[in-house]
Amino acid sequence: MQSKLIAATMLAAAVTLSAAHAADPAPNGIAYPTGWQNWQIIAPSYRTDNNTIRVVIGNDIAVAAARAGNTNPWPNGAILGKVVWREGEVPGWPTAKGPAAFVHAEFMFKDTQRYAATRGWGWARWLAAEQRPYGANAEFAQECVTCHTPVANRDHVFTAPAILPK
Amino acid sequence: MQSKLIAATMLAAAVTLSAAHAADPAPNGIAYPTGWQNWQIIAPSYRTDNNTIRVVIGNDIAVAAARAGNTNPWPNGAILGKVVWREGEVPGWPTAKGPAAFVHAEFMFKDTQRYAATRGWGWARWLAAEQRPYGANAEFAQECVTCHTPVANRDHVFTAPAILPK
Repeated sequence: MQSKLIAATMLAAAVTLSAAHAADPAPNGIAYPTGWQNWQIIAPSYRTDNNTIRVVIGNDIAVAAARAGNTNPWPNGAILGKVVWREGEVPGWPTAKGPAAFVHAEFMFKDTQRYAATRGWGWARWLAAEQRPYGANAEFAQECVTCHTPVANRDHVFTAPAILPK
Repeated sequence: MQSKLIAATMLAAAVTLSAAHAADPAPNGIAYPTGWQNWQIIAPSYRTDNNTIRVVIGNDIAVAAARAGNTNPWPNGAILGKVVWREGEVPGWPTAKGPAAFVHAEFMFKDTQRYAATRGWGWARWLAAEQRPYGANAEFAQECVTCHTPVANRDHVFTAPAILPK
């Protein structure tokens, strides 16, 4: 009996620890793309209006498409991530800027059928270190679509893949 | 005889094509780190004095060290790459900046014994799409060391790894 209690306690502790690192699905049902921290680079960017600095990354399908120039449209299965930090100083280098506090990671999931209602992309964002899903309800994705409409002719993607040597 | 000539011609053509994508070693003997385009992110950065935007990337050893906070000193075998582009506009988003023309990729190779004479790091840079090695002779690395001396107390690395959620 005691060993069962200990086992149950350990299991509960393990579940709690695990939950602290898990991110809930976005309000539109999109699951958290585990492992994005190890995706490869598409492009860096930054904003001049809110002091944030960013990296666009992609899953394997997105990176292969970017390297091949196959990005208008992006292929189904591609996932683009944009990782955003507050902009900070680089100690020892007065004219350089680098990342400070982590702000959020946001994603576009390409699936022309599944996400036909939102321009062929599923949209999701998770906030801060705890990766809380963004949006009060599924309608939040309309904000994303509206903002990305100026680049509808580039498959709704603002940042072009950075040019890399072969 | 004719078939031998054809074979020799095809071989020469293949060598020429191959050479067009190969990058010569740096003047200090450091070999080009093939495949860096698929390394993972350490941090984005940009410079306010010369309109360039950058991504710091790492090989597997460097990325594991960055994720673990094991970066002062960085472990032997770590290679850090900094990929540099001209800064450009992001069409459709007036307050965003992204990468334009590719400028160069530069690398720090950590090996405290092999590179004892240059602060425990091997230094190298390859320029432009054709990836020409930078530097007239092996002494070029002194430029790198001199520039990085202000951050000697951070193992000569300017940009701290970006904070990522677990």
